[in-house]
Amino acid sequence: MAVIVQKYGGSSVGSVEKIKKVAKTVIKRKDNGDSLVIVVSAMGDTTDNLISLAKQITNNADKRELDALLSTGEMISASLLAMAIKDMGYDAVSYTAYQIGIKTNGQYGKSFISDINDNKIRKSLEKGKIVIVAGFQGINEEGNITTLGRGGSDTTAVAIAAKFNGICEIYTDVDGIYSVDPRIYKDAKKLNEIDYEEMLELSSLGAQIMHSRSIELGQKYNIPIYVGLSNSDIKGTVIKEVKNMNMEDKPVTGIATSDEDVVITIKEIENDINMLSNLFESVGSKKINIDMISQTAPINNKVNISFTIPKEDLKECMGIIKKFANKDNITINEDITKFSIVGIGMKTTSGVAAKMFKLFKENNIEVKMITTSEIRITCAIKHEDKTKAINIVAKEFNL
Amino acid sequence: MAVIVQKYGGSSVGSVEKIKKVAKTVIKRKDNGDSLVIVVSAMGDTTDNLISLAKQITNNADKRELDALLSTGEMISASLLAMAIKDMGYDAVSYTAYQIGIKTNGQYGKSFISDINDNKIRKSLEKGKIVIVAGFQGINEEGNITTLGRGGSDTTAVAIAAKFNGICEIYTDVDGIYSVDPRIYKDAKKLNEIDYEEMLELSSLGAQIMHSRSIELGQKYNIPIYVGLSNSDIKGTVIKEVKNMNMEDKPVTGIATSDEDVVITIKEIENDINMLSNLFESVGSKKINIDMISQTAPINNKVNISFTIPKEDLKECMGIIKKFANKDNITINEDITKFSIVGIGMKTTSGVAAKMFKLFKENNIEVKMITTSEIRITCAIKHEDKTKAINIVAKEFNL
Repeated sequence: MAVIVQKYGGSSVGSVEKIKKVAKTVIKRKDNGDSLVIVVSAMGDTTDNLISLAKQITNNADKRELDALLSTGEMISASLLAMAIKDMGYDAVSYTAYQIGIKTNGQYGKSFISDINDNKIRKSLEKGKIVIVAGFQGINEEGNITTLGRGGSDTTAVAIAAKFNGICEIYTDVDGIYSVDPRIYKDAKKLNEIDYEEMLELSSLGAQIMHSRSIELGQKYNIPIYVGLSNSDIKGTVIKEVKNMNMEDKPVTGIATSDEDVVITIKEIENDINMLSNLFESVGSKKINIDMISQTAPINNKVNISFTIPKEDLKECMGIIKKFANKDNITINEDITKFSIVGIGMKTTSGVAAKMFKLFKENNIEVKMITTSEIRITCAIKHEDKTKAINIVAKEFNL
Repeated sequence: MAVIVQKYGGSSVGSVEKIKKVAKTVIKRKDNGDSLVIVVSAMGDTTDNLISLAKQITNNADKRELDALLSTGEMISASLLAMAIKDMGYDAVSYTAYQIGIKTNGQYGKSFISDINDNKIRKSLEKGKIVIVAGFQGINEEGNITTLGRGGSDTTAVAIAAKFNGICEIYTDVDGIYSVDPRIYKDAKKLNEIDYEEMLELSSLGAQIMHSRSIELGQKYNIPIYVGLSNSDIKGTVIKEVKNMNMEDKPVTGIATSDEDVVITIKEIENDINMLSNLFESVGSKKINIDMISQTAPINNKVNISFTIPKEDLKECMGIIKKFANKDNITINEDITKFSIVGIGMKTTSGVAAKMFKLFKENNIEVKMITTSEIRITCAIKHEDKTKAINIVAKEFNL
């Protein structure tokens, strides 16, 4: 039994009319004889509305309760879609996370799926039912409701596909994955396929299309993930293992930028490796993702150290840093853009970094920090230079 | 550990401000040293809004999915109340039905609670937490979400109180239970206490204050149920076993009326006891509550038979009846009011029925059907006579 797991995002189920449209698309696919599991996000603004309710209660909502609250959004769209499909004469059943044992671990608001009990889904599929699953949520070991973070429904879909060794299709409001954000660079090209590694880098670096964790899962279980428009002849992008690179293939596959980070700089901190690693461990233990780190040469055994973290974690992070450094020595710069180029071709093509920095220099783009991996180069640049940087780099590497 | 179970209805948690007010009331009670379990309904119009969403999908929503949909309303208010209480510095935790094992049986939309796993609640109470429970819902043996019917949160509250042999307090937007609906009879008196049996009759007959099933449970486990305003000095009503009736007590405790029923009349149906009991069993098997039945004397072994059912079940009921009788012989009368007087004093006081029918006759109120029990008399009268009937009977029996 080949199982196809489709995920419909919040805008695809944003209204009753859209839910009915999804129902029609799904039953057309069912008529082809496929076994279907449909993962849904919350309708349109539902999650934002629930967050707003919580904010009216308190600015510092208990995380367990916030997850319990937010999980209802996906339950609503799941039951409505099941109703719509049943109304069209096809058998369907909606399941919440606890009903199909979506087990999670990790923190509230950003949990990981550790396992899924496939029994109930399998039985329903064997009875010919279309299975609808509330995405974005799970149950942790203590039996508490947890959520997987924004875009977590993608991960729900890939995890189910992995459990059934099936195919995953992510339907969204974009027609595929582009080398560059087409809203900023109008000549951006759509990719037919992209390697998991590349997509992972692009996602984690700010390309908002997919939940990073979902791509990791896809890679781990080698599940191809199709991303595109539902109910459309426009061909989307398949995320998969791209093995045989041609020599002529481009070294750079895409550009990602993010305005969601801040640079924190600590001046004149003791150059003590134990203390510094304690600092970063303390921040890391709160699952705050430190991305770029740079450090000046020591003067009188003191160094200046800069690093980036997600803006949303700033408050929590500052609480930790203040235990390690004098408040007056900490500065925060929110006016930066993280600019990254990604490509598995960079593994075998040299000179990519040199070419990019030359371009930046010629165009007076100041590079504040740099990090690299085998398949990416990331710089922190001034926010005002973002559009210029995208355009010159996209043109140079034919993206 | 004395456990107090409080239930706050939809209007009490109808907005963020009201939820905060409930939180304040609850923590004030907590300061008294009480162990508190708080059962909440959905916020204000939430349930109606969810029903409206379902109706936009289909007029004939799948009942399993409808229950799954509606159950989210109480989850939302439960987590928001827990957040609000935690924000005020008190420990609280919200639970959905599945988390505390509220087991149900019976049909979707009108399930019964069969058991509650008290373990999780007990442990939380022992840790000093205020426990918030999403009312109105449960999980049936197949693991599906079920709801308990309108007002079902009352039943959730009484069931938990029963499990802990505690006290139940139902907070609502009325200040207690009145002998007669004060909107119709302005001199109506509030009752300090009322017997379970009387309240049960009044509830099932249309007094909208309490979910009948909750009173049955209260009676079964002898849990006193307080009904009144929260955060108010106005004293409400206690539903309990009223043992020692004084001779001077009134034979009639209250009047209930309902416009929610229809009379179905089947003309010239075979006077075959097997067929008739089959008919009523078929209707009953769908949990459609047939209340009043009257039958004419047989002519040529044919009879006319009339009975009342809830309006909401009319469609389903007609589907069944058509298998037993010719469509042309079935008439439906929606223009009726079920008028009932209730009082445990009627057990020992005779002539109550005679007095009422004399009043009706003097005032030209036509009685279409009658049923009685030990403690009540119910008549079907024309809807237009309702207000007149209430006023003359309330005055006569000093209600």
